[in-house]
Amino acid sequence: MKIVVIGGVAGGMSAAARARRLAEDAEIVVLERGEYVSFANCGLPYHVGDEIPDRTSLLLQTPESLGASLGLDVRTGHEATAIDPRARTVTVRSASGDQTLGYDALVLAPGATAVRPPVDGLDLPQVQTLRTVPDADTMRAMVDGGARRAVVLGAGFIGLEAAEALRGRGLEVDLVDLAPHVLPPLDEDLARLVDDELGAHGVRTHVGTAAQAVTATPEAGTAVEVRLDDGSVLPADLVVLSVGVRPDSRLAEAAGLELTPQGAIVVDATQQTSDPHVWAVGDATAVRHEVTGVLAAVPLAGPANRQGRRAADALLGRLTPERAARGVLGTAVVRVFGLTAAITGASQRTLRDLGVEHHVVHLHHGHHAGYFPGAEPVHMTVTFAPDGRLLGAQAVGRAGVDKRIDVLATALAAGMTMDDVAELELAYAPPYGSAKDPVTMAGFTAQNVLDGTLRLWYPRDLDEVLARALVLDVRSAAEFADGHLPGALNVPHTALRSRLAEVREAAAGRPVRVHCASGFRSYLAHRVLDQAGFDVANLSGGMLTLRAARPDLTLDRGAA
Amino acid sequence: MKIVVIGGVAGGMSAAARARRLAEDAEIVVLERGEYVSFANCGLPYHVGDEIPDRTSLLLQTPESLGASLGLDVRTGHEATAIDPRARTVTVRSASGDQTLGYDALVLAPGATAVRPPVDGLDLPQVQTLRTVPDADTMRAMVDGGARRAVVLGAGFIGLEAAEALRGRGLEVDLVDLAPHVLPPLDEDLARLVDDELGAHGVRTHVGTAAQAVTATPEAGTAVEVRLDDGSVLPADLVVLSVGVRPDSRLAEAAGLELTPQGAIVVDATQQTSDPHVWAVGDATAVRHEVTGVLAAVPLAGPANRQGRRAADALLGRLTPERAARGVLGTAVVRVFGLTAAITGASQRTLRDLGVEHHVVHLHHGHHAGYFPGAEPVHMTVTFAPDGRLLGAQAVGRAGVDKRIDVLATALAAGMTMDDVAELELAYAPPYGSAKDPVTMAGFTAQNVLDGTLRLWYPRDLDEVLARALVLDVRSAAEFADGHLPGALNVPHTALRSRLAEVREAAAGRPVRVHCASGFRSYLAHRVLDQAGFDVANLSGGMLTLRAARPDLTLDRGAA
Repeated sequence: MKIVVIGGVAGGMSAAARARRLAEDAEIVVLERGEYVSFANCGLPYHVGDEIPDRTSLLLQTPESLGASLGLDVRTGHEATAIDPRARTVTVRSASGDQTLGYDALVLAPGATAVRPPVDGLDLPQVQTLRTVPDADTMRAMVDGGARRAVVLGAGFIGLEAAEALRGRGLEVDLVDLAPHVLPPLDEDLARLVDDELGAHGVRTHVGTAAQAVTATPEAGTAVEVRLDDGSVLPADLVVLSVGVRPDSRLAEAAGLELTPQGAIVVDATQQTSDPHVWAVGDATAVRHEVTGVLAAVPLAGPANRQGRRAADALLGRLTPERAARGVLGTAVVRVFGLTAAITGASQRTLRDLGVEHHVVHLHHGHHAGYFPGAEPVHMTVTFAPDGRLLGAQAVGRAGVDKRIDVLATALAAGMTMDDVAELELAYAPPYGSAKDPVTMAGFTAQNVLDGTLRLWYPRDLDEVLARALVLDVRSAAEFADGHLPGALNVPHTALRSRLAEVREAAAGRPVRVHCASGFRSYLAHRVLDQAGFDVANLSGGMLTLRAARPDLTLDRGAA
Repeated sequence: MKIVVIGGVAGGMSAAARARRLAEDAEIVVLERGEYVSFANCGLPYHVGDEIPDRTSLLLQTPESLGASLGLDVRTGHEATAIDPRARTVTVRSASGDQTLGYDALVLAPGATAVRPPVDGLDLPQVQTLRTVPDADTMRAMVDGGARRAVVLGAGFIGLEAAEALRGRGLEVDLVDLAPHVLPPLDEDLARLVDDELGAHGVRTHVGTAAQAVTATPEAGTAVEVRLDDGSVLPADLVVLSVGVRPDSRLAEAAGLELTPQGAIVVDATQQTSDPHVWAVGDATAVRHEVTGVLAAVPLAGPANRQGRRAADALLGRLTPERAARGVLGTAVVRVFGLTAAITGASQRTLRDLGVEHHVVHLHHGHHAGYFPGAEPVHMTVTFAPDGRLLGAQAVGRAGVDKRIDVLATALAAGMTMDDVAELELAYAPPYGSAKDPVTMAGFTAQNVLDGTLRLWYPRDLDEVLARALVLDVRSAAEFADGHLPGALNVPHTALRSRLAEVREAAAGRPVRVHCASGFRSYLAHRVLDQAGFDVANLSGGMLTLRAARPDLTLDRGAA
């Protein structure tokens, strides 16, 4: 059997390696147009930032090592230029000219290419993507060569990593995104924390705006300047282009394979394309989102590796139905200086955009027991359906964030309800968690929302609340004096039972909207008021969430 | 409605607080025989070790704070001495004499008591348990008073925490357990790593032996000596008794409630006991193990809190079937100096003892990408059924251990198969994990075992392998020279394809048992040999697992 794999990084190389382990006698050729195979593309920003100083540690395999350990025929500098599905041949261009390779099975793993928006000046040599080892080499050389200012276009995962890396090398960094906040996959009520962290480390953020033009400025102190839509002009020695990627499906399209309207290669649950002898994997393929059902390219390394493994099983006739492709969750994590931000499943924004009815809860529980030194809050949002099914989760914090998102990603994969989440039995000792873990607390809170024990109000309701309700602030008098919502009544939660008449009088028939710092004390107050017959709701996530969602908010100060 | 709760720590106080949140008009009395309620019992060892220096941080609530925030009538120093289920009364003894309290609903949360084995001298004042705040006070006072040597009887979770705490305070520490290794819930192939860590920090371990007697030795330099079954005599100023706990079900038994043969209170899925007006929660109750089906007391804080919440819902008629009790997994974690050890589900030993057919895989993957600085191996075992269902997992390492066990605990709760585990989509960026996470790799490895792509051999097979098979060591020549199994043939995995004839000759018709350092290179070799017609199997977990499971093993040294 002759297997040809186009693309020698994550998904392609996983397919080739798995195929060899299952079929010692197959002829397996891997075509890679670049100079390197199996390199650590997720490590590139850390090499630029010198956290991974040794370049060779990014080169996980070479054609020689893969030949020796797996008997693979790996050809770098070989670009597939055409596929003839009828003849089952691939045309390959290399330094030694064109050639034609026959195949019994073809695996396409061409990956994605950087989106290049129609902005003047993106072809200047100071404008760099960060997707390959040579990209990283160039960027390091520019830093080593004295670049002092960088503009990063796009504040997604790679943009944030690039900004941190360059800042770590001492550059001044401006970070630009068209979205209303950095890290657009994150909802606005958590993204603010990431923005604060960037600011605390000297990265200037420009959101809701995009680059209009990059211009060479040889007479100035820096090499170029980046003009933004909002009129700002940012001088730079280096511009990082990280506004996103799109599937590299040119070959597949030319070969007549079915693509989605957005240009991703359509595959079935066995990774097979519309041609029965061609399989496709990785960033170029369309995958179904497990929660939303949306079909799209999702450029993530974990799914790519599994897809490669699956394609090999499938083309060798070894794939069982249990191992067919499932939907993806889009689970992702990024380090931003001392902060970790992570997501899985559907965001609030996605659910709103798709018109999916859902609830959301906000939590700020410690990553381990509060009485054990060093507890850090895990700022977390969890979305779930009216029937209780978990839909997604996001978290930001200084510790324990990736763990909670991994647990909830596992719960999502299992189709768990919030009752299931509340019953999760997680490992607890004071250095690691709490008897009531943030995940478990999300489950409890959701249960209360679902059965009516807890009614929530949200930062988006603030204007209406201020206009039409009594805001009841149940924090301590000192917390209240330090900053409170205009017109709020302060009754500390421990005094509420004895001061109900006062609350009733102040409400004067209006609804009562209660809050505290993070939502727990006000939940207790909410229960008291609810049972006393008030129209009451509790601010989800308390002032911590409100201030992150509404950074413009001005608080009153002084005692009640 | 009048609710009486007996026991004011984890489960009992959760029940009382939840009941108040749901029933503002209920009369809720919490009886606690001790001096403190809602204290951080899991934090006590860290207070002894001075990692939590401030004693008040362990006292999470007081009767006054609970009265103010929740309107609970909390009575410390009040011991329930009898229950009359027919009259629905509790007899209570306190400093002010006996009284009788009526109830509509009674919640029993009496907890567990320390097992006191029939050993002479356990009543000496130097022998201490570590279960209450006064216990911790006493132990701290002994350390502050100049205790220089401690003997810890029982190397379970509390024993390990106590040993670390006392060692951290500068004491010489001997740790004793009757089991063949420390941390008996862990299987022997991982427990060795914990033993090594204890040794590296100067804790002397004595396993397979127990205390025979504790004797006062006023004439010696220390206060007492502990004589062990194996003849050792350990001088000590302080003896920690941590050989286990048993349900404190005396009251329940006297009231005629149904107990298990082991003395745990029998409850149904609503926490209701055999009396319709009495619910029970926490360490005194019997719970069903989710994997093994075994009914036993499982003293863990997380389940106790949930049980308390559930009992409140149930006695107030608010519990829905979806929120009924599920089985427990026994998920637990402990820090042992720089190491973390964690478990969930069934251990290999439990499965063997119960005669449950199962597979096990051993892995040693990094807690994050190997090319990112600071990767630490997660030494992990995962057990699964022949039908692919996950049964349990254990892990030991310096980072990322609790995360993997929490993910697998979630997978267990969901009833996942190893196909499901292989498809988990976990958060990946180089500082947090790998595109192929240790959990995912466990899934892949299990899939290979289940479909016959991988056949394993284990440390327990070693003697037979050495007697009857060719041991093929596919590590590098340098690794081989540094120590190898007697009689092993060294063919580095990259040279195997060209040296098959040599292997065939050396095997001379015998099976080939291949291994490398951790099991991956030898898996590649295994695939080559399997497809070349050899009777071949691969050592699960490689030399890392073998040396942990067989510390007695002597290796040959020198080149092939």
